[in-house]
Parts: sequence; C-alpha cells; structure tokens
Amino acid sequence: MSRFWSPFVHDLVPYVPGEQPKLDNLVKLNTNESPYGPSPRVLEAIRQQVDDRLRLYPAPDADLLKQAIADFYQVTTAQVFVGNGSDEVLAHVFNGLFRHTEPILYPDITYSFYPVYCGLYGIDARPQPLADDFTLRVADYQQPNGGIIFPNPNAPTGILLGLPQIEEILQANPDSVVVVDEAYVDFGGESAIGLVDRYPNLLVTQTLSKSRSLAGLRVGLAVGHPELIEALERLKNSFNSYPLDRLAIAGAAASFADREWFDSVRQRVIDSREWLAAELIRLGFEVLPSAANFVFVRHPLHQGAKLAQGLREQRVIVRHFNKPRISEFLRITIGTEEQNQALVSALEQLLD
Amino acid sequence: MSRFWSPFVHDLVPYVPGEQPKLDNLVKLNTNESPYGPSPRVLEAIRQQVDDRLRLYPAPDADLLKQAIADFYQVTTAQVFVGNGSDEVLAHVFNGLFRHTEPILYPDITYSFYPVYCGLYGIDARPQPLADDFTLRVADYQQPNGGIIFPNPNAPTGILLGLPQIEEILQANPDSVVVVDEAYVDFGGESAIGLVDRYPNLLVTQTLSKSRSLAGLRVGLAVGHPELIEALERLKNSFNSYPLDRLAIAGAAASFADREWFDSVRQRVIDSREWLAAELIRLGFEVLPSAANFVFVRHPLHQGAKLAQGLREQRVIVRHFNKPRISEFLRITIGTEEQNQALVSALEQLLD
Repeated sequence: MSRFWSPFVHDLVPYVPGEQPKLDNLVKLNTNESPYGPSPRVLEAIRQQVDDRLRLYPAPDADLLKQAIADFYQVTTAQVFVGNGSDEVLAHVFNGLFRHTEPILYPDITYSFYPVYCGLYGIDARPQPLADDFTLRVADYQQPNGGIIFPNPNAPTGILLGLPQIEEILQANPDSVVVVDEAYVDFGGESAIGLVDRYPNLLVTQTLSKSRSLAGLRVGLAVGHPELIEALERLKNSFNSYPLDRLAIAGAAASFADREWFDSVRQRVIDSREWLAAELIRLGFEVLPSAANFVFVRHPLHQGAKLAQGLREQRVIVRHFNKPRISEFLRITIGTEEQNQALVSALEQLLD
Repeated sequence: MSRFWSPFVHDLVPYVPGEQPKLDNLVKLNTNESPYGPSPRVLEAIRQQVDDRLRLYPAPDADLLKQAIADFYQVTTAQVFVGNGSDEVLAHVFNGLFRHTEPILYPDITYSFYPVYCGLYGIDARPQPLADDFTLRVADYQQPNGGIIFPNPNAPTGILLGLPQIEEILQANPDSVVVVDEAYVDFGGESAIGLVDRYPNLLVTQTLSKSRSLAGLRVGLAVGHPELIEALERLKNSFNSYPLDRLAIAGAAASFADREWFDSVRQRVIDSREWLAAELIRLGFEVLPSAANFVFVRHPLHQGAKLAQGLREQRVIVRHFNKPRISEFLRITIGTEEQNQALVSALEQLLD
C-alpha cells in the first residue's frame, strides 16, 4: 500500500511472462519462440541501421514497416497499425475499442494477458467456457457484448477455429469489434486478414515474435478497417509517439520482404510439430490438435505439475499453468529436431 | 465518430511530435536530437546482438540496463525503472502516480505531452503560469495537489531550476509525488537523482534521446524510491512485458558505461550553445538563458511564425509553437558547428 499510488494500482494483477532463464544449455520450450533465427535479410537490414543515425528519432508512423505489411497482405497502410510487440497493440485495443457498457467476451481458457488488460482499463469481461474438447462454441458469442477477442489458433490449446465460424461471429456482432489474435496463425491457420474489407468490425492482430523469429525485436501489428486503426493511432499518439525504434522498423520490414525464409521456417516447425505429436501419443499423452508452434498435452497417469518439475530437473523447460481445467496440461513449444528429441528422451525417463 | 470506439477516444487530443522530414540536406534543428552520434561502444554492443538470438524474448526486466544505470547514478536497481523512451515512462507515471482526487500541477509553458497524458487518463490539471521572465515560481507549488511535474531544465524555455528550489517543492509536498523530468539536464543542470534517497516522494525521469544521442533507440528511465518504482513496474507488467528489445537493452547499457564519450558530447553541445546564443544576441534576438541542448529565442521586430517559415524556405527546420505567450518564439536545437553557422547565415539573410 502506498499513498503515492493511484488507487487502482493496488488492485492490479500484472501478467507473468514465461521465464527467461539465464542459464545456457537449457532446452527452452516454454515461451513459444521460434527454434530458428530470423531471415539473414532481417539481420542485414538491422546492421545497416547501426550507425550515427541512431541519434535521430525514428519515423513516428513507421511508414516503411506499414508499407511492407500492406504489401504482404494486400491491404492499404491506412488499414495497418504497428506497435511494440502485439502486447502493446492489444493494450491499445482493449483501451480504445473495448471500454463499452457491456462486458467483453473471450474464452475461459485463453491468453492470460486478456484479463490483465481488463484489470488495467476497468473493463468487465464475461469469459465463455470452451467445450469439453476445448473447442470454441460459436453460439456463445451471440449475446450482447462490448467486444469479442480470441486467439486463433487459441492459446494455450493450439486449436484452430475456421474462417466460416469467424464469419458467423462477425455477422452476429455488427456493433461490436471482434478481435482475432493471430499470434500463431502462420503455423497452420488461414489469416482472417482476407476478411477485413468485408467486415468493418473485424480487427486482426499478429506478432513477429513467433513465425518471424523476432521475439527479441518487439514488433506487433493490427489490420482492420481504417476507422478501427484510427482509434489505435489516437491512443498510440497519446501514449508514446515512437514505440518502434529504428532497428525494429528496419528489421521488421525486411522480414515481410523475405517470404521464402518465412515459408521455410514455418514449414519446418509444422513438420516438427507433427513428429512430436506422434511421439507424445506414443508415450501415452493426449495431444490436442494444434495449429500453432506448440502442443498442449496431458498424460492420464502423470500430474502436469510433476511432469513440468521432472523435465526441469533434466534441464528441459516447458510451461505449466496452475489454472482450472488445464492444470494437468503442459504447453510445449516446438523446438529444433534436436530439442524435440531431447524432450522425448527426458519424458521417456520420467514416465518409465 | 465511431460506434466501435471507446467513448473517451473521441475526446483525445494526441501529441504532435516534431516533424521528421524525409528530405536530405536539411539543417534539422527541430526535435532536440544530438548533433553527434552515440558512443562507438554503443554501436558495437548493438552489433554484437544482431544474430539468431533475436528469436528469443528480451529479459523482461532489462536487468543489464538497470544495473548499468544503477552503477552510473550510484543507486540500487530497485530504484530504477526503464521504458520505451521517457514518453512511455511518463505515461506510466501519469497513470500510476497522478490519478488522485486533487488536480496535478505543472507549468503553463512546458512539455506539451503532459496535457495529453491528462486527457488519456482523465486526470485534472491546474497549470501554473510561469513568471514573466519564464522562470518557475516555487510558491505556486505549495497548494493542494495530486502530483507535480516539471521538466528541469524546462522545455521549451531551457531555463533551469536549482536543486535548493526543488527541495523546497519536495518538502512542501510530502504526500504528493514530485516528478522532475530531466530530459535535458545533462546540458547544464545537476540531476536531482542525488536527492532520491532523502525524498520518498521524488521521481526523476531521463531519456537517452538527447545527451546520449540515442533518440532512434527509444530508451527512457525513472529513478526514485522503490515504492514509486513498484507502481511503474505493475503498470508496465499490465501493459507490455517487454517494452525494450534486445538491441535497445544492449545499446543503452553500453551508453552508461562510456562516460568519456558522454562527457565530451555534452561539452561540445554546451560550447556550441554558448556560441550560438552570442550570435543570436548579436542579431537582435532575446535568448532565454538555456541549460538545455536548444535555445528559445524571439526577435523584437520579426514574428516567430514568419521566421520559422523563412528558415524552412532556406532548408533550416526549427520548432515553432503556436501557443499563448510563446507564439513569437523559436525553439532551436543546437546543431553541429556547421549547422549552427548555416542557421546564423540564414537568419542574417532573413533579418536583412
């Protein structure tokens, strides 16, 4: 308690990011980073900016990056917003588009930053339970609401919702903003960005932290109707004029220009996921069908917390959420082939 | 107007940053950047990070940077907060420390982002008019308030307040947070960071965008009592877990480690400022006494807006604020010796 704090600060429950351990030689499968580095063209584009020009402010509207994204997705730059990671983008989304009279809707099992944003901005939420098989029920999103958000594929389940179901939700909610958080869409889903021209209530968010191997650069984006983008720009320009530094703008733009690297990295991850899922099933795990760069698994005979701890003792770090309905699950990021093999070997020992 | 926007978004009046023109060959003296590049050690530290590790998230608490700042200022890391430019730091300050019942106080002529933050967070402000000579009157800050903030030296005047006066304000306000925004302090002031151990209500903010030549890297900081820092950390962790990318953390930390470069750059700027001030006085300008990397000047015979426009036609860009009390002034960033000479030559032509 502090008399200096704005009163609401006492009630904040901040997000807890996955651990970033400083030890080397860990098999780090806990924060859904890419096992492969970014495109060499990204590294070169950044190197080209490491000079005296760092004394100058970046372009406040990051227009080079917005253009690269617009080119990649065949939209206009007026339909593109960029920020310091998709977390910053989502923060502005909650503040700028979700503060209405009705509560917002999101799945009960989902990205755990959503309730944190609600706490930060005083937004009421009415979480909608996923079905027993952890799929999202479209009918739950056909009730009065102040906004809708869900990851697609969902996290931490990895389960994908099809575009026809997303269109059902969009059509049922013409007066609400529907945000599709596509952090993981490149590993098996089709982006809803193709729908933004038809649905003025659709906003799609993405990150460069997963499929583009740039978690360390902090870049995220949103694509939607210019009217939605305008709200985000107003908030951004009332908060921080230059959230993306010169290096991030250059590197992120180069990432969108190298489609070949992007396609090859995500295909490798997809292939590894299918291999790992088969191995885990062989070991007796239930593996939810994943369209992401992670799998969400539980074992009928072994507690999730104990497995996570046992793996840690073998220097393999996975994510365990001590939360209702999913406390028996492990979320395991797809690693390199070598890392995935190390995980399987560690599990074989543990289950033995 | 949009039914999708949170209602308050309609009333936001965003900050307008100084222009970042894309033309080359401009004498750009409008956004108070350093005329000299960052330390070579900064560039080298960044280059060392441009590799496959960009696939990994940065350290969420940027501990390497916090330690470098703590070492530089002889404080503990628990007294240090870092963010994506001092603008992001200030945004969290307004949200986390200034949302109280009483209005906050700041000078009527000051950094124009302060009222924007008030609009963003619904904070009432009671601006305190500077004296006729544009100095801050300590007595104005001895009334009930929900917080106090002022730049020191002030912007855009450049006028410095002494530490004894700051202590008077701190002592008169034991129940309010007093924020000293030291964006420009390295060009002629003494930091109030030396006072933080004695005043739990003092928070000092700084940026690496001016004296450390890193506007393009987006790093700012706050130093104060751990209780104040804790409020900022809660907000940061409810908004964006990783506001500083791997390159910014490495470069910023290296900047604090190279004291020699830092001292030589700011001394060159100070020397140039004194030369430029003398030249401007020679040309008939009134020059406010500046402790910053800019001068704030007006000419008794020439309108500020017209001078700014005339300079622009000669490819010299300065900042003009079309605001009460200061509409006749120009804010001119100290450039290289060559740029300062170009400015003087252009003014000689205009005044001729």
